[in-house]
Amino acid sequence: VKYPVIALMTDFGEDDFFVASLKGVIVKINPSARIIDITHRIPSFDIKAASFILFSSYKYFPFRTIFLVVVDPGVGSYRKILLAETKNYFFIAPDNGALSLVLEEEDIEQLREVKNSKYFLPELSRTFEGRDKMAPAAAWLSRGISCVEFGPEATSYKKFRLQKPRIKGNEIIGHVLYIDKFGNLITNIPERMLELLRKKTDKNKFIISLKGRKITSFVQNYSSVKKGGLLFIVGSLGLIEIAAKEASAVEKLRIKNGDVVRIIV
Amino acid sequence: VKYPVIALMTDFGEDDFFVASLKGVIVKINPSARIIDITHRIPSFDIKAASFILFSSYKYFPFRTIFLVVVDPGVGSYRKILLAETKNYFFIAPDNGALSLVLEEEDIEQLREVKNSKYFLPELSRTFEGRDKMAPAAAWLSRGISCVEFGPEATSYKKFRLQKPRIKGNEIIGHVLYIDKFGNLITNIPERMLELLRKKTDKNKFIISLKGRKITSFVQNYSSVKKGGLLFIVGSLGLIEIAAKEASAVEKLRIKNGDVVRIIV
Amino acid sequence: VKYPVIALMTDFGEDDFFVASLKGVIVKINPSARIIDITHRIPSFDIKAASFILFSSYKYFPFRTIFLVVVDPGVGSYRKILLAETKNYFFIAPDNGALSLVLEEEDIEQLREVKNSKYFLPELSRTFEGRDKMAPAAAWLSRGISCVEFGPEATSYKKFRLQKPRIKGNEIIGHVLYIDKFGNLITNIPERMLELLRKKTDKNKFIISLKGRKITSFVQNYSSVKKGGLLFIVGSLGLIEIAAKEASAVEKLRIKNGDVVRIIV
Repeated sequence: VKYPVIALMTDFGEDDFFVASLKGVIVKINPSARIIDITHRIPSFDIKAASFILFSSYKYFPFRTIFLVVVDPGVGSYRKILLAETKNYFFIAPDNGALSLVLEEEDIEQLREVKNSKYFLPELSRTFEGRDKMAPAAAWLSRGISCVEFGPEATSYKKFRLQKPRIKGNEIIGHVLYIDKFGNLITNIPERMLELLRKKTDKNKFIISLKGRKITSFVQNYSSVKKGGLLFIVGSLGLIEIAAKEASAVEKLRIKNGDVVRIIV
Repeated sequence: VKYPVIALMTDFGEDDFFVASLKGVIVKINPSARIIDITHRIPSFDIKAASFILFSSYKYFPFRTIFLVVVDPGVGSYRKILLAETKNYFFIAPDNGALSLVLEEEDIEQLREVKNSKYFLPELSRTFEGRDKMAPAAAWLSRGISCVEFGPEATSYKKFRLQKPRIKGNEIIGHVLYIDKFGNLITNIPERMLELLRKKTDKNKFIISLKGRKITSFVQNYSSVKKGGLLFIVGSLGLIEIAAKEASAVEKLRIKNGDVVRIIV
Repeated sequence: VKYPVIALMTDFGEDDFFVASLKGVIVKINPSARIIDITHRIPSFDIKAASFILFSSYKYFPFRTIFLVVVDPGVGSYRKILLAETKNYFFIAPDNGALSLVLEEEDIEQLREVKNSKYFLPELSRTFEGRDKMAPAAAWLSRGISCVEFGPEATSYKKFRLQKPRIKGNEIIGHVLYIDKFGNLITNIPERMLELLRKKTDKNKFIISLKGRKITSFVQNYSSVKKGGLLFIVGSLGLIEIAAKEASAVEKLRIKNGDVVRIIV
């Protein structure tokens, strides 16, 4: 086996036969493939969530992991299936923007359209190309079939534009990017923007303002805050996160994805 | 290892210690077994759902996969534990009908009752035969123990009778078999029945009628319908499915499993 | 690979990037590690639930399994990360009581504090030591790195005290320890306490009393009770469980964890 790890991410949930079919197909083609689930709980058709979850985890996987992303509202239409080879990884996904964040960060070596029916299941359905085309392609790729075999070069791919955080006066203006299981609000503001603001203003005391509320505890770790207290912190992705100690910030603040967050010095 | 893949399906959910115990038992007996989860989210005691999910996915698994199905309302009673060897696969399950659909489709080579305590855990509980009997049996089978070793021949097995769709005049009368995570309604009507109706009536325009509503868009793929629009399509199992584009048909239609679906030419 | 099985338990849920990151880290360090999920659905920060689920399943795993438990309300604070080697297994977890029940039962051979940054990821976050410290330590351990390499001996570890059931007059007084997916109430009363009570009173007919209700059917298996009927039984952990046949006892009884259960002879 050339590239043994196949990491799966879908919006299929875990109740149905979808994920099992993908895995069966992969193991049938490559009995030595090692399948790791990223998650199957992407909200149905939510390309942006898929893009973010992939982005948040992919770097921790081994060199040459094959990421198979099946969040596919356009299944059966003329949207392409992409195969991207980057310096470190492979990605297979419908061309709908799900790879936006990772491909912005990775060095793309080649971009292919997955089209060669030699690497598909013999019978194709109209509604489940994840099973019929993408999973078999990933399995064949893991066995060492060269990328060029899967189809012609793709000259472009769909990207969605993420609103970047910006500095305006003595503020950083960003937004909530993702709300995790603990109710933490992950913003799109990286730690280094605080550095920039610090240098620009020569001040060092940050507070967060969102939806008319202010949060003043910018902490190094949760232990300096009392249970239930709101705080902000540099999270595990290097982004500013708003949290409540051993509690849910989203419940306390009634915030949703995309809401504006201001960091004021 | 003779048959390395063991595919698991249960109604245990993922919150408790049940699934972990099954997997521990299997790996302890056969460190090389490859465990693939079909799903653990079969509704509690729902034999029909188990039967359908197994039926929908098993064909995609490698030759000689061992399917272990633990949905077992009769645990501890005198119901048998079945081991079925078919031309292509093995199935282990309580004898309660969970294998109805797959055994109807597969060629049965032998049917055994799993009884030999040599292949059970040394201590048996009264409430968890999945862990104490079925998982060890599956693990020993995967190591190559012959089916005859597990117990006497079983002369029959429990089946539930599925109501088949039928053609009456210029209609196909079927019902909703399963509602998936996306809210698609999977009916029990196979594509080829439409062919039959087409031939019989020499007409070619189908509409679906259910609960007083009519759906007219019979499409090749979702892209020809506008977002939220209702449609029907040949789904990934070769069955007619009612869907709403990037939306939930079940929410729009307030349908439940078993509701009647009519296809009118 | 020296100790191939790593069993994971967290309160991360399955929606986010947390579990995937752990698995990526492990497989990157040890491509032959075999990861088995116990559960990722421990309620957020619930040390007691973690302790119970681990206790309920660990014995079924192979000799020398490495258990990695990441339920970590104190992440980033000065709480230790423990590595316990027992006669049969390894356990890695924050020192917060999550190992209370297993370490009470196992023979501890050594207890270490995981501190050696040689076995951590090169970049450390403040909020995700599961990914940055514990997962890499587990992966290196599975490759055969000796326990002593990970850090100094730990002279103590946090335990929470479980209230034990007791016999008083002709009663056993215990409580509900855990409510499982089926709505069964698992008590902390072991089967052998009934033996004691039987000997003490020379009587043999037990009933359960909880929240003013009495349950009289103490059964050998579910089949002797009619559907929906309440019963009690020796469950799969050797503990008395209160169940409703093919139904949910917790819904019928409106009981919660910790509620008192009396067994009267």
